[in-house]
Parts: sequence; structure tokens; C-alpha cells
Amino acid sequence: MSILPHAPADTPDTDIDRLAEAAGAAARAWRGGPAAGRAALLRELAQGLEEERGHLVALADEETHLGTARLDGELDRTAFQLRGFAQQLDENQVGVALGEAAVAGVPPQGRPALTRVQVPLGPVAVFAASNFPFAFSVLGGDTASALAAGCPVVVKAHPGHPRLSRATAAIAERATRKLGLASGVFGMIEGASITPGVRLVRHPEISAVAFTGSFKGGVALNAEAQARSRPIPFFGELGSINPVIALPAALQQDGSGLASQLAASIVNGCGQFCTSPGVIVILDSDGASDAFVRDLTAALDAARPHAMLNMALRDGFEHGVARFERHLAVSRLTTAVAAESAGPRAYLGQVSASQFLADPALHEEVFGPAALLVRAADDDEMISVLRAVGGSLTVTLWGADAPTDANCRLLQAAVSIAGRVLFRGVPTGVAVCAAQQHGGPWPASTRPESTSVGFAAVERFLRPVALQDAPAWALQPMPAAIANN
Amino acid sequence: MSILPHAPADTPDTDIDRLAEAAGAAARAWRGGPAAGRAALLRELAQGLEEERGHLVALADEETHLGTARLDGELDRTAFQLRGFAQQLDENQVGVALGEAAVAGVPPQGRPALTRVQVPLGPVAVFAASNFPFAFSVLGGDTASALAAGCPVVVKAHPGHPRLSRATAAIAERATRKLGLASGVFGMIEGASITPGVRLVRHPEISAVAFTGSFKGGVALNAEAQARSRPIPFFGELGSINPVIALPAALQQDGSGLASQLAASIVNGCGQFCTSPGVIVILDSDGASDAFVRDLTAALDAARPHAMLNMALRDGFEHGVARFERHLAVSRLTTAVAAESAGPRAYLGQVSASQFLADPALHEEVFGPAALLVRAADDDEMISVLRAVGGSLTVTLWGADAPTDANCRLLQAAVSIAGRVLFRGVPTGVAVCAAQQHGGPWPASTRPESTSVGFAAVERFLRPVALQDAPAWALQPMPAAIANN
Repeated sequence: MSILPHAPADTPDTDIDRLAEAAGAAARAWRGGPAAGRAALLRELAQGLEEERGHLVALADEETHLGTARLDGELDRTAFQLRGFAQQLDENQVGVALGEAAVAGVPPQGRPALTRVQVPLGPVAVFAASNFPFAFSVLGGDTASALAAGCPVVVKAHPGHPRLSRATAAIAERATRKLGLASGVFGMIEGASITPGVRLVRHPEISAVAFTGSFKGGVALNAEAQARSRPIPFFGELGSINPVIALPAALQQDGSGLASQLAASIVNGCGQFCTSPGVIVILDSDGASDAFVRDLTAALDAARPHAMLNMALRDGFEHGVARFERHLAVSRLTTAVAAESAGPRAYLGQVSASQFLADPALHEEVFGPAALLVRAADDDEMISVLRAVGGSLTVTLWGADAPTDANCRLLQAAVSIAGRVLFRGVPTGVAVCAAQQHGGPWPASTRPESTSVGFAAVERFLRPVALQDAPAWALQPMPAAIANN
Repeated sequence: MSILPHAPADTPDTDIDRLAEAAGAAARAWRGGPAAGRAALLRELAQGLEEERGHLVALADEETHLGTARLDGELDRTAFQLRGFAQQLDENQVGVALGEAAVAGVPPQGRPALTRVQVPLGPVAVFAASNFPFAFSVLGGDTASALAAGCPVVVKAHPGHPRLSRATAAIAERATRKLGLASGVFGMIEGASITPGVRLVRHPEISAVAFTGSFKGGVALNAEAQARSRPIPFFGELGSINPVIALPAALQQDGSGLASQLAASIVNGCGQFCTSPGVIVILDSDGASDAFVRDLTAALDAARPHAMLNMALRDGFEHGVARFERHLAVSRLTTAVAAESAGPRAYLGQVSASQFLADPALHEEVFGPAALLVRAADDDEMISVLRAVGGSLTVTLWGADAPTDANCRLLQAAVSIAGRVLFRGVPTGVAVCAAQQHGGPWPASTRPESTSVGFAAVERFLRPVALQDAPAWALQPMPAAIANN
């Protein structure tokens, strides 16, 4: 079995250039077009996904092994997200302008009339992820938010689900045709190597890149985006450890319930979530902690194996676990079993905080159902563990309900490394709403001031322009026909 | 005369590290501190500048030759800006949180309670500019906005005005002492080489960089910021051509008034403004255009020479003008005179749009009182000139009052390359207000989604964090004493 058995051939350079140029032409034609038109497109895409649900979910399951129940829910979420951005457009929440009247007098008090409007950046290159074949793929959050901003999209399909990608792209192509939009509003390229993606990122018409994927691939494409003669923003999500701090207060109250929630989060989708918990920190001296560890280990041992997305990820996971196994400071808690073809067994290793802090190799993400249980001597060690982990999409703080000094300091440390801090529940499952923040300091995101989930994601693809002493006509959205040049 | 006659020695590495570490400690102590405390600091700084006005303006004039009238006005603007950010803090306009209640049910509709708060990034390295010794220097807009966000600042002083920089830093040090803040809230380093700045940008405690200066220096420091093991945002303003499109409608109405306004803008501060107009585009066939060119040339010839900031800039200017003089397609309009020690004479060259488009060397900024008059055959050539110029802080569109197709297309082209589009007046002079946008596509800004002037500048130094199911105490600003660890 090859690593990606049905990987598509690389899209030829001439086709990549043609799609980027069509996207550039569409950007000039479409930008400033009415919000209602963009909302109609997003709703058409949501409906298209739902109408072909049976076919799409079956294809997705064949290509990703994620199971039809999960994939059905993911399609729901993707349609919800597309309609959510449409709703934001209906409610004039996208690209809100800020106007200030002139003030008479000399500067600095005196000033001209200024209106700060938000304009779309231009064509966005979207790199689809393998682990969410709907929600972070062809018509996922990056595409939805770019289209909502008025930016055409050229998707680089993930080679892990090529047939699903093509079927999804066909929905987009039908929708733009039906609505009479320029064909360049949506395009897709393919390939299993980095070559077509690099060509796309280098194309002068591309104005921004959105990427969800591996650290290595993201770093390489980010470097390409910055090496252009005119560098462009690269919004990349490159990996995350998602520490969970389980304080005695929470474990004393419901350690066994939390153990089963956490085990489910670790093995959910075979641990192939960007928010999958990779480090669990407990207080060593606490009796409730020991019971929690026993329950967590038992729940992980009882979890059924689940196929990973592809052999490359399975190999990476087994290598990561082998690295823990060889490490003198790490002891295995879950039961060792012979490798099974169905999928990997969940792994839980145990290490003291001081040993964890001493070896940066232990701070690297192992993508899949593996976690390290870190035993800290006190709050200071917990805080040191958070700082050592560094940029993360999430930190979970169980049992910090009271405003004690220790909890304040833990919260501050959590906030300083994460894009989202949870006080209850598990980090997997990311709500799509206006207050969501899915990002965080490097490497969780290459642009920690931005989010790739939730309605603020559209802001990534807008840029402010101040119009000074503008006549009334210049402050209206430009009619699409006039804007078409 | 050396290029920077009184350039200070490089701050030793150990002192740079000590200041960065103090800034890191102060960030942990200060972040989340009350907005009122930050407002008090900003007001104290404004008052300090005003109290020492006589001394500071005299020092600034000695070191920059910008003239006391201009420097007095610049000090006013700097104090206005500091108080403006304080006012924003008073009115709770900085780091506004967005809360959403939980929604019952299964995802995607059901979701936990989420509050999106804005947290300071951490210590900011601010690189002062030479051309605004108050407004873009030690206590200028970058420092004001970083402090407003709750980020400590380490300024790299510009070696062109070392004594003024030290006197300004002393005001900041007195203010932090008086208010009982950690000394690490403000620090300053010096040097005429790039070495101390590079060390500062590489320091692990530094979380963001704000830079106003040369293209070369900015590109080098941006590369350092991105080459860190954890890259950080680099907000750089690297240069701008600021095209002015003078349409017949405007020139027929008041060509002579506009010519004198424009000449004043070109020679203002010896053309040493980031928004100084470098390219003026007119319609070749228009009679009013010819009269405008004669008036503009005469006004530039009549302008008195003004000393440049330093010999390096003077040399750069003379080289730039010599490049135009040697260019076969460019003819000089202003009168050639022998070099004077007082300062350079203004230069206006003339070139056809087709020749301008043919040679990218003509699109490079010449820092100082020089501009190219570009004669376009039609609107399409004007649009091509804008596209060729690329990223610019401003575009000025005179005479686009009516919503004709041509004006719509010109506006669209202007918006696509600029951070600010003016319909009246000249681009020099940047109002400090909420709707201001001082940025634009590369190289005008390395982060075109951000502004370095106006109250939105504070957003550069904040990062969103979503707090999920947070107890009430965690949604309050943390008391500084508890946050101090």
C-alpha cells in the first residue's frame, strides 16, 4: 500500500497560471460587488453540499475512514458555517466602515473627513487539510470566509481525498455558473507534491494564503509567500499540543467523568484533530489525581482502534510513540499491544514535570491518539510546563473556578500561550460563532492575531482603506458592472 | 563631515538583553493592568513633552534642521496622540471584548459560552525614524499605541538625533518612576549600526516589532523577525511613492491653486515625509494640464532650499536625481542649478506614461523633494501607472467628483494599491483619529491590514483569546498585584 494510494497528478503549470489569472480578473470584477450576491453564493454552496450529502459522505468515508456519523456531522457544520457567513453579510457585519466628519481648525485637532472602509485583498490560495475533508477542505472555513470577504479562491486540494475534492469543486463551479459569476471566483488545483502549491503561492495575482496542515509544509509555503518580490500574508495553522491542566478541585469533584471525557477527546477521530489534547498536567501529590490517571488509562485501553487518514500519518504516529518508548524519563501507562492493521492503539505516557521541562523533544506534537501525562510538584511547575509548550490553539484549565492567586497565575500563563482557554469540557469541537478564536502564538498560527474558525475569520481577507474628503458616490459599494475592468 | 556626526555608540549586548528581560518581566506584571493606569502613563508622557518643549525643540532643530515651527507643531501632534490613546482607554475603546452566551443543543447550533478578549502581545521593539524626531520617534505613535495596548516598549533610538532621544527617554523614565510602574515598561537602546537592533529583534522576550525607516533596513529586520525559532509580527513602513492623479476637471477649476499646494507638499520638510508625492499623473491632451505644469514648475523653482536630515539622505537624494538626469526618457522641468550647501533644490522631471511603464527603475522612491510628472494618453494609462507603482501609503485623485465609469475605475485602481485615497488636498499631513489608515500593500507596509497612525494602531499589539465557559472572575481585568509573577 503506497502512502496516498489514489493521489492525483500535479496540475500542470499552465493550468495553475490560468486559474490564478482568472481569479485576478474575477477579483477586479467582483470586489465591491453587493454583499447580497456573496451571501447568495454561500447559501448556494451550503445547499449543494446538502443535496449531495449521501454521495459526498460515502466518498469521504472511502477516502478518509473517518466514519459516516462523524462525516455527516462535519458536512452539517460546513453548511452551517457557509450560511453563517451569509447571515453576517445580511446583517452588514462584514467589512463595517467607520466614518468621521471633518473637524475645523489647524492640526492636530483640525482634520479632513475620513471614512475607513474594508476592501477585499484579492485572490486567496486555500490549502485544504486532510483531517477535515469538509470543514477545512474545498468548501471549508477558509473558502467560506474568503468568499464572504469578496475574494476569489483557488483551492489546492488535499491529495488524501481527491475524488471528494473534485465532487465538492463541481458544486462550486455549478453555483458560480448558476449565479452568473465570473468562473475565476472559484478554482481548484491538485497534486501530491509541494510543486503546484509553490507555483500558486508565487503567482503575482495571489494576494493571501490560508493553510491548515503540517509544520514542515506550512513553514516551506510561508517562506515562499515571504520571498515574493511583494510578500503576501500567510495564514497558517501548523500544529498544537493543547495542554489540559487538571487541578485537584476538578478531579475531586468528578475525576472519573473527566477521565472518560478526556479519553474520548484523545481518541476522537483517531486523535487527528488540531485541538486533540497532547499533554495532561496534574499535581503529583494529589490523591484524586492518581484515581484520575487510573481511570484515564483504563478508558484509553478500552478504546477501539480507528484507522488513520493515511499511511504517512500512521507511520508518523508510530515513530512518535516509539520516541516516547525509548525515552528514559517516560513510562508507558496504557497497555502495550502488538501493532494492528485496523489502526493504532491510544498511547499514554507518564513523565515528571522536571524531566518534561528538561527535554524539548518531549514538547513536540505527536499527531494521533497519543498524550503525555505530566506530573507537576506545584503550580509553578504547571506554569513552567505551559511556557515550555509555547504556542497552542487551546489550553484547558479544569478546576480553576475560584479566583485564587494560583488560578490567576495559571490563567495568565494559559492566555499567554493560547488562542482559546477552556474552563470546562474538552478542546476538540470548535464552535462556529462570532466570539470564537482558533489560532494562537506560533506555531499554532503564523498570524496569531487572526482566527481560522468563526465569523472573525473573514477579517483575514480584508484590508482597511481611508477615503479622505470622498464624494458620496465613492462611499457606496461599487456596482459590479462598473467595477468590472 | 561624517554621515551622522554625533552618532552614539552601540548599546552593549548585555544591556540590550537586560532591557529586553526587564520588558518581559514588566509585561507579565503589567498586562491586564487597569486601563486607567495606562491612560495615566500616556498623559504623564504628553505633559512631560510639553513641560520641556523649549529644550526639546531646540535640541531637535540642532540635530535635524527641520525648523522650530515645524518641530513645535510636531511636538503638539505627539502630545495630542498620547492623550488621544488615553482618551480611547477612558472610553473603553481599546481591546473591546465580545461575549456570546451558551446555546443549548448539539453542534453546530449548540455551543458553549465564549468571550473573545484582547490581550497584549508582550514587549514591543520600536525602531524610531529620523524624519519625525517626535511623532515617529521615542514617544511617537508606535510607542504610544504599544503602551496603550499594555505592551512594554524597548525603543531603538535613531542615531540621527541621539541627544533628543535621550532627553525624551528621560521623560519616560521619570513618568514610570512617578507612577510606580516596573522600570521595564520603557527602555531604550542606541547605535548607528544594525547590530543592536538585530540583537533586540532576536531576543526571546520581544513579541513584536514596529519599524519606520528605509526599505533596506526594514527588509533586513523583517527577515530577522521571521527567522526566529518563534517568528513574531513585524509592522514595518518601508517607503511609498504617493501618486497624485490630477484630472482635467480639477485643473480646469483651480489648476494654479493646486499647483502651489502640490509644490508646498513636495518641498515640505525637504520632501522627507513618508507621504511626500513622488509621481504626478496628468492627461497629456488637456490644455489645463499644461498650465498646471508651468505653475508647478515655477513654484518648485521658487522654493527655498532646506537642509536634509543628514548627509546620507542628501547623498541618496542627489544620486536619485542624477539617475533621472541620465535617463533618456526623462526631461527636467525645474531649472538646473549648481549644488548648494544649504540643501537640495526641488526637482521635477517629465516622462510619458508609456516610458514610465517600460522602466521599473522609474518606480523607485527618491527620498527628498523630487517628483516625476507622468503624462498619460488616457484613463487606462493612468490606471496602468497606478498598478505599476504598486503598494503606496496614499493615492490622491483630484477631480473625481462625478461618478463616471472612468472615475469608478480610477478609484478602484487607487484603492487596490493604497492605504488612503484623497479626493482633495495633499497627502502630507496625516490626521490622528479613529478612521485613519496609514499603511498599504507592500512596501508601504509589511502588514497592510494594520495602521501605524490613528487609534486603530493599538490593534497591532493585541491578540484575541476566546475564554470558554469562564467563571466571572476570569472575565474581569486582572488586578496588577495578582498578575505580577
